[in-house]
Amino acid sequence: MTMSSSRRALIRGMAALGMTALAPALGAAAAPPLKVNAERLRRSLEDLSVFGRPAGGSFADGVSRFAYSDADLAGRAFAMDLIRSAGDAPRIDTAGNIRVRREGTRPGLKPIMIGSHIDSVPGGGNFDGAVGSMAALEILRTLADHKLRLRHPLEVALWSNEEGGTIGSGLATGAVGKADLDLTLNGVRRADGLKKIGGDPDRLSEARIAPGSLQAYLELHIEQSGLLEKAGIPIGVVDGIVAIDEYEVEITGFANHAGTTPMPDRRNALLAAAKLIEAVQEEVTREPGRQVGTVGHLEVFPNARNVVPGRVKHTIELRDLDAAKIKAIGDRIAARAQAIAAETHTGIAMRQVQRDAAAIATPRIQTQIETAAAALGLKTLHLPSGAGHDAANLAAVTNMGMIFVPSLGGISHSPRELTRWEDCANGADVLLQTLLRLDAE
Amino acid sequence: MTMSSSRRALIRGMAALGMTALAPALGAAAAPPLKVNAERLRRSLEDLSVFGRPAGGSFADGVSRFAYSDADLAGRAFAMDLIRSAGDAPRIDTAGNIRVRREGTRPGLKPIMIGSHIDSVPGGGNFDGAVGSMAALEILRTLADHKLRLRHPLEVALWSNEEGGTIGSGLATGAVGKADLDLTLNGVRRADGLKKIGGDPDRLSEARIAPGSLQAYLELHIEQSGLLEKAGIPIGVVDGIVAIDEYEVEITGFANHAGTTPMPDRRNALLAAAKLIEAVQEEVTREPGRQVGTVGHLEVFPNARNVVPGRVKHTIELRDLDAAKIKAIGDRIAARAQAIAAETHTGIAMRQVQRDAAAIATPRIQTQIETAAAALGLKTLHLPSGAGHDAANLAAVTNMGMIFVPSLGGISHSPRELTRWEDCANGADVLLQTLLRLDAE
Repeated sequence: MTMSSSRRALIRGMAALGMTALAPALGAAAAPPLKVNAERLRRSLEDLSVFGRPAGGSFADGVSRFAYSDADLAGRAFAMDLIRSAGDAPRIDTAGNIRVRREGTRPGLKPIMIGSHIDSVPGGGNFDGAVGSMAALEILRTLADHKLRLRHPLEVALWSNEEGGTIGSGLATGAVGKADLDLTLNGVRRADGLKKIGGDPDRLSEARIAPGSLQAYLELHIEQSGLLEKAGIPIGVVDGIVAIDEYEVEITGFANHAGTTPMPDRRNALLAAAKLIEAVQEEVTREPGRQVGTVGHLEVFPNARNVVPGRVKHTIELRDLDAAKIKAIGDRIAARAQAIAAETHTGIAMRQVQRDAAAIATPRIQTQIETAAAALGLKTLHLPSGAGHDAANLAAVTNMGMIFVPSLGGISHSPRELTRWEDCANGADVLLQTLLRLDAE
Repeated sequence: MTMSSSRRALIRGMAALGMTALAPALGAAAAPPLKVNAERLRRSLEDLSVFGRPAGGSFADGVSRFAYSDADLAGRAFAMDLIRSAGDAPRIDTAGNIRVRREGTRPGLKPIMIGSHIDSVPGGGNFDGAVGSMAALEILRTLADHKLRLRHPLEVALWSNEEGGTIGSGLATGAVGKADLDLTLNGVRRADGLKKIGGDPDRLSEARIAPGSLQAYLELHIEQSGLLEKAGIPIGVVDGIVAIDEYEVEITGFANHAGTTPMPDRRNALLAAAKLIEAVQEEVTREPGRQVGTVGHLEVFPNARNVVPGRVKHTIELRDLDAAKIKAIGDRIAARAQAIAAETHTGIAMRQVQRDAAAIATPRIQTQIETAAAALGLKTLHLPSGAGHDAANLAAVTNMGMIFVPSLGGISHSPRELTRWEDCANGADVLLQTLLRLDAE
């Protein structure tokens, strides 16, 4: 469907429903397309950035608002206040997600959902998740300002604990189960964290979104890579989200005195870890492609300068759009681990703790995003998402689309993460226009 | 001096002073040599092991009684109670050391000091430091039981924070200065820790032991290596303590998203650390000898599974009796670090934070230890100490001697550290007999 025929069809459809108010909102020839309040969106992002900011820091120092922390709780309270200011009543579902529902004008239609997350990694930035979340809330307010009601019910979800493994959206869609809540990350067991933010691990089924119960899910997010900036293009149309394999490795050597244990007698778990970290790098870069592999978390025991490390725990994470490719790399790394264990007289246990399938964005929604952007005079680029997103979970239960905006220098999960205010507003406008187009379909 | 002429001279000397009670104590032909109460020594070690024991654990689970911790405080209180039970008054010097002085019978003689430490590494064992400390307190009680007084004043020192860098003995002998107290280890700044245990960083000079003010310093310690056990010999006569060079390394890369940052664009601080850990191993083992090198402490920032590590801090520790050898190894590692920094697009800063000189045990005291052991029917083996000890600091201000007892399997700085009760008692007996011989010189 071309843009112009699509737009004409939408306007005809709305006219038939007596919804002429939506015609200028969709960018009919006579009036510019409806846009969000860019200044208010910026203020929301600046206000949110206070929660988890390092003591004495500024906006440029980023945030540590990791899931279930006190900063996360404070950020969530702030977001719920914003929702109330739009005239809506937020609720927390049993999976800890902040949910909003605004009824539509046409009974019987399925809801369209928009959303993202407001938790961050430790030492993260002010845009990852926050842009899509604050844009969704800004859209609630923009629609209220203009007294516009959609035909479909409009739902907003701010997913809990995205950075810890898309836990909130996973629980809501069935990708994550109750057993997964036993894991402890950043010092907090997920089940305990979930209770802290108002969820209920014993009533998770109440948060479930049944397959087919939504019309579509849309998410705006920063790109977190440098492709859009390098290409000078403001809007990315995501065609898919990579598969992610996560492993946990435990290396068992023997803790002994660093002064008295001869080198040949050592069973040094950190030396084994060093060799395995290099093996991960080698196996991931052995073949061409965009696959990535990372050892991001590592702990040493007992971690004293004068003790040969007896035990090391670390993660391995592999990502690519091709799930078979990272499965094969994981198998090669596991084989290398056993050779390293034999060489260093240690034991190495490597077990897979998560496997996120690749998720393909619904082609029809990709087209609507392109069309919406074009109507706003914004160029688009198709690209995959190297980062996992809540949208990947939603793709299992509904039609899914994702909009990317540029990250300067491709920097993300860092205090230096930065997306221009203009790009934030462009992304929110495309999200709003795509929503209106889906609503009119 | 041979054993028999020495013994005759001692007995003559004591007889001249009316101290016939000491003749059997020294193992004159007519009576067996004085020994400690082995059962009471064992009980002291078992009782001390409670402080820092893991919750719900047993003696076999070791201790985490690291300096300035609450467990350390509790262990120190226990030791001071033992001192009081021997009829002595413990005091805490401004360097945080627990000190005891029992006056001698002969005015004007310099004190002989015995001692060790009761702090442990995190996840350590029940013998390192504890054996020498409890033996020293057992000797106070044995002498009191037998109403024996030495000619020299007898001093006991339980040095504070040995495992964190022989800090208490270093402050007392001038090897460690006030500026060194700014360092934070195990989460506690040394100056704050020192205050917590009753020391005073502003009056350190009051704890100083002036060079030449002591007659001698003796320390009993577990070997922490497997040489004595392998040789089947119960007593080690230490001929020297290795030099130790300590470095701190900080690697600065760039924290970025683990899913979206292409492999060639990464500045991965943990990958650089892995290469440097392997370089340490290679440089230390490149040449023959007993030198050792260890990366024991390592921290990753931000340490999240989905973030490319932006920063890593770790230690490097090198030890050998030959200070020039480890200096050269350190220089080679520093050169390797710069090559790794260039290869990984990181910055690597490596700075030396401590240099402990090798310490030679006084040959005359080595002979007295051999003689004392022989009188008890115990075989001896001369060997170096790969571990640093408070005795190394004392060697700078007085005559020093060290006695080693076997560590089963050479295991130390581990909950599995184990010295047989019989070996603990043998060591305490040799310490007592050596003390009596030095007193009679």
